[in-house]
Amino acid sequence: MTERGGTPEFRPIVWQGEHLLLLDQTALPQAERWVTCRTAEDVAAAIKEMRVRGAPAIGITAAAGVALAARQAWHDGHDVDEAIDAAVAMLRQTRPTAVNLAWALERAQAVARVQPDPATKVQALAALVDQLLAEQWASDEAIARAGAALLPRGARVLTHCNTGGLATGALGTALGIIRWGHQQGIVAHVYVDESRPWLQGARLTAWELGRAGVPYTLIADAAAASFITSGQVDAIIVGADRVAANGDVANKIGTLGLAIIAAYAGVPFYVAAPCSSFDLHVPDGSAIPIEQRSPDEVRRVGGVLVAPPDAPAANPAFDVTPAKLITALVTDVGVISPPTPDRIAAAVAAGGPSHSRLRAEEEMRA
Amino acid sequence: MTERGGTPEFRPIVWQGEHLLLLDQTALPQAERWVTCRTAEDVAAAIKEMRVRGAPAIGITAAAGVALAARQAWHDGHDVDEAIDAAVAMLRQTRPTAVNLAWALERAQAVARVQPDPATKVQALAALVDQLLAEQWASDEAIARAGAALLPRGARVLTHCNTGGLATGALGTALGIIRWGHQQGIVAHVYVDESRPWLQGARLTAWELGRAGVPYTLIADAAAASFITSGQVDAIIVGADRVAANGDVANKIGTLGLAIIAAYAGVPFYVAAPCSSFDLHVPDGSAIPIEQRSPDEVRRVGGVLVAPPDAPAANPAFDVTPAKLITALVTDVGVISPPTPDRIAAAVAAGGPSHSRLRAEEEMRA
Repeated sequence: MTERGGTPEFRPIVWQGEHLLLLDQTALPQAERWVTCRTAEDVAAAIKEMRVRGAPAIGITAAAGVALAARQAWHDGHDVDEAIDAAVAMLRQTRPTAVNLAWALERAQAVARVQPDPATKVQALAALVDQLLAEQWASDEAIARAGAALLPRGARVLTHCNTGGLATGALGTALGIIRWGHQQGIVAHVYVDESRPWLQGARLTAWELGRAGVPYTLIADAAAASFITSGQVDAIIVGADRVAANGDVANKIGTLGLAIIAAYAGVPFYVAAPCSSFDLHVPDGSAIPIEQRSPDEVRRVGGVLVAPPDAPAANPAFDVTPAKLITALVTDVGVISPPTPDRIAAAVAAGGPSHSRLRAEEEMRA
Repeated sequence: MTERGGTPEFRPIVWQGEHLLLLDQTALPQAERWVTCRTAEDVAAAIKEMRVRGAPAIGITAAAGVALAARQAWHDGHDVDEAIDAAVAMLRQTRPTAVNLAWALERAQAVARVQPDPATKVQALAALVDQLLAEQWASDEAIARAGAALLPRGARVLTHCNTGGLATGALGTALGIIRWGHQQGIVAHVYVDESRPWLQGARLTAWELGRAGVPYTLIADAAAASFITSGQVDAIIVGADRVAANGDVANKIGTLGLAIIAAYAGVPFYVAAPCSSFDLHVPDGSAIPIEQRSPDEVRRVGGVLVAPPDAPAANPAFDVTPAKLITALVTDVGVISPPTPDRIAAAVAAGGPSHSRLRAEEEMRA
């Protein structure tokens, strides 16, 4: 626990060079259990099993997986470059929708590539994880300030899924705005969608808000329309797993419905995302791969069967919200409103830590 | 089990004069457990605990509660009229949103009032329960035929909550259309919203469709927008707990969001409801009382805590969909499209068993 901006912070991703500690998000809110990852395989399993989740947190965790693979190969006298490439290939398969994962893995490869020998590659990769965490704090704080400035004083905000410290390893994106906005006396109340099937809202966002002392009300996802259309919600703020070049946003399943309801009710709909979540290689949302997760996540809740055991179920983890339904994209390089391809390209080119990371990636691909 | 329309039917409400058997909907789909109600208090508890649910089923069950109270008073040598009034007062409080409950109770009172002596009151009330069940079959079948005629051949339909035999004691309303439509080769596939917090879709609708051999896919409520906007849904059909004079519909929480998404996507949105669910005394949806259920239903799923134990939660059981979002009301006296106060008044006045029941109520109130 460290103090930051006046609020006691927890750090769900703790990097110790020889291993990575993750606050197990499958155990929350009942237990604060930590998972120790000593190998890239441990990291891949933690990502797949959603012990760590949230696009930025997955990216940082995956980079740590590459660092662990390099360290182990060096220790065992194996080829470090081969171990890095194998770890990247394995980790890339864990979650297909979040762009941060691919981006962090490519950055790790690029960092290692320019080092002269195995020992410095191992060292540089370990340092990269620390750097990613530090950059995430800076990025999240920039988003929090920009987003809170869009809200009226006393705002009642609705959010979906979990976009807090648990999702980024730092302050959070959408939930970072909310928490920082509450500290500033801007955000008065939060409606939290429970976010079935994985219940990130009920399990994680409620836990983070309770811990931070932010007043909130947990609701079933299907209750959101009732609150939004009856004047009880001043703004909706969600995160993004990937933003296409035209401003379409892939985010947790349920986001699209909220955006449609917000447009109907005339309530602003904000998407908070660092530039590292922008994928300019993807022209629009239709090109974003959507992860289909196990039907058992729909048939069961917390291990309890809630449907016939053989019930056919579909479990898309994400949906795509068209740019036209988004009032503003709140990024770490400023607010993009309304989101258009030109404005998005300009924002990404405008600078900031994420921009330089994206540019590095572009150069690497070139 | 009886055969009806070629499909083996189950009867979740079995009236045996001296007691009422209810298929316990809190135990489904894991177990087919029956609850025996011998007193009006047993019936009130079964309704409150949602062992029986669905507006028409609640109405029939409540009438049986009055019949049981009258029988017991007669048996014990107490005043039968007083017992009836006390049972009505108690049962009226069990669920405030469904209009069928109040309607069935008033009908029971009216039936008893015109009888000359305690013995015939008891007999008439017992016969009323049988009559209500028979009328429900006729009403549900009329709705099924009218609704199926609105669908294209091969229709893929999305539904919410449970509106099947479990909800009416007969064929069902929205789910009656779907099941009958499937028998006719019209409905090809059903998307079933799980319908948190009580999971009527996952637990009950999936069970009924599986039993009837209708192909379906269970989805999280928040996934509906993704399927509706991507051309995978030809129509949405839901039920109603109460329809106001202007066509506004109170129905299971989540209905409003579906209606907004349907309008956005240009998908027809149908509400199936017998005339007994119309409340012409209520000018519009704002006057319909909305039941607020326990926050624990949001914090827990199947007994498992899924949120911090002290998480503040709101649990409105219903929402109100404005008439302008409803393509058609499918009733037991025909299709009302678009729903307007004039058309609704004309349909209710046009005849049919429900109409005569409503008229009886009007006369009684006058």
